[in-house]
Amino acid sequence: MKQYSVAVAGVTGAVGSEMLKVLERRNFPVSHLKALASGRSAGKQITFAGQTLTIEELNAASFDGIDIALFATDTPISKEFAPAAVAAGAVVIDNSSAYRMDPACPLVVPEVNADAMRDHTGIIANPNCVAAILTVAINPLRKLGNFRRLVISTYQSTSGAGAPGMQELWEQTKTVVDGGTAEPKFFQHPIAFNLFSHNTTIEENGYNGEENKVICEARRILGLPELPVTVTCVRVPVLRAHTMTVNIEFDGPVSVEAARDALSNAPGVKLQDDRANNRFPMPLAVSELDDVEVGRIRQDLSCPNALDLFIAGDQLLKGAALNAVQIAEMWVAQQARVSSK
Amino acid sequence: MKQYSVAVAGVTGAVGSEMLKVLERRNFPVSHLKALASGRSAGKQITFAGQTLTIEELNAASFDGIDIALFATDTPISKEFAPAAVAAGAVVIDNSSAYRMDPACPLVVPEVNADAMRDHTGIIANPNCVAAILTVAINPLRKLGNFRRLVISTYQSTSGAGAPGMQELWEQTKTVVDGGTAEPKFFQHPIAFNLFSHNTTIEENGYNGEENKVICEARRILGLPELPVTVTCVRVPVLRAHTMTVNIEFDGPVSVEAARDALSNAPGVKLQDDRANNRFPMPLAVSELDDVEVGRIRQDLSCPNALDLFIAGDQLLKGAALNAVQIAEMWVAQQARVSSK
Repeated sequence: MKQYSVAVAGVTGAVGSEMLKVLERRNFPVSHLKALASGRSAGKQITFAGQTLTIEELNAASFDGIDIALFATDTPISKEFAPAAVAAGAVVIDNSSAYRMDPACPLVVPEVNADAMRDHTGIIANPNCVAAILTVAINPLRKLGNFRRLVISTYQSTSGAGAPGMQELWEQTKTVVDGGTAEPKFFQHPIAFNLFSHNTTIEENGYNGEENKVICEARRILGLPELPVTVTCVRVPVLRAHTMTVNIEFDGPVSVEAARDALSNAPGVKLQDDRANNRFPMPLAVSELDDVEVGRIRQDLSCPNALDLFIAGDQLLKGAALNAVQIAEMWVAQQARVSSK
Repeated sequence: MKQYSVAVAGVTGAVGSEMLKVLERRNFPVSHLKALASGRSAGKQITFAGQTLTIEELNAASFDGIDIALFATDTPISKEFAPAAVAAGAVVIDNSSAYRMDPACPLVVPEVNADAMRDHTGIIANPNCVAAILTVAINPLRKLGNFRRLVISTYQSTSGAGAPGMQELWEQTKTVVDGGTAEPKFFQHPIAFNLFSHNTTIEENGYNGEENKVICEARRILGLPELPVTVTCVRVPVLRAHTMTVNIEFDGPVSVEAARDALSNAPGVKLQDDRANNRFPMPLAVSELDDVEVGRIRQDLSCPNALDLFIAGDQLLKGAALNAVQIAEMWVAQQARVSSK
């Protein structure tokens, strides 16, 4: 099997380090791995597939000879260096929001809209974590009827804000259980034993940046540009998995049984809907799992054509690193098809 | 001012002990306070208004000479002893779910449906914590238009499961930050750094017991017996305040400004809606506060006649003890009016 030279930019972050684990665990065909980060981390060593690698500073010349560049960087860094990677001949899979709404760059959840990848021009965008977990879980329900409206509330882990967010939850919690007071440093508000409206800026329409991303990206991934969606994004004291309630109104009646059937056989989804034992999706239980779990599937008592769902998925995996590597795997499969023609 | 003999049943629990604090803090006209609990706690001493009281065992004879009996007991205990209190001439204000849907017993949030108290026959029911916090926050918005549908997701603190729930969160969290594993004892699932669908049993309609209470009680308190409501109740790792997202569809267009105005002047409510500073309701910030906070008020992008809201209130105060004492205060005021006629 052909092997590929892979660069991971932002390799020291929560998502970047998870990308290395996922590449290794899924036996991604890596001929050579280049670990890139800011100057602060350059020279440090990390391990990948039993080999010790030295982190190099990310710059415009980093991508010479690279086939696949996975970016786990902030939006300004992606904007600065992804074009250089493309110019060097690499395909870029970018986890930032820099290119997600760019018509030239597909926004892909492989289980949902793999076809969109065909048209890429060098950069493929990896979605917002909520949008990825949401769309993989609800897309299988489209066979039951057309979506008319989504009402979503999220319970988002601190990993969504990166390693410093996770560390802040952990350190604050230690302080509080030791009798101290949680002093916010990274987040604006205390996160230990607390929760707050998502920490992104409120935009002109009254929704915060995260909420607007979820709405725009979910519509784009599902290929439903006019889908009515409302969402409230909330940060909760959980380390690395996102949970959400989703109310889906369809254009006609749907049954709970049909929804269960559709989800039972869906790729990337696990039905976790045990009413008798009160066992449903939970962030701790899905942490470090690839599948997104769905449960609490029930007929909405307030609307004859709606279902209520409860969904949980690992923010660092399906919400970020796993989805990016899945995109890379699909790109590899595309290359194999092209070269065999 | 006339003073009243008051019994508190279940005085050692999270709600019962809070009732004592609220009675004291609000200078409730108590001539004599009787502290009642199970046999296990009988003989122990507690402090009320600077006096040391000895806890007595709750039994059918406990209410001789009592004017007002506040029950902070489980449903079976309330069912067993509330009728004895009424027979002894006391008015009962019961925090359990025993009488909440009994047509003979008003279910009261004083800011919302004080009038319902007129028709009581000895027992006045104190609502479910979510129902109380929800209704006090949204009732002022009815002047903007008729409610057509509510879609609610909750972020409920462990205090809603009583002192053992709060203790479980605290102890498990200590264990986890010390490197151990959270072993569920009181709740079925780990609560430290986790969350789960509410721990009540799933009922025949697919909703759990808590969700069905919220729906039925909110309708009754608002006097809207047919109001379409759906709710997903979730337990989160927070100690003593409940938060919720509420999507309200009205029968016509409503403005964010009108909603803010209505809430600014509403009793029991504090507008906390600072978009510029990302400061909205938070459970830690409302803990030990009487007012329920409302924020994130915005036009729902998915429905022209709907608003999205984010609400937080202290579960032990407006969700339980404060509301019960407010009912008692209204009863006292009624007595004063009756005796002055």
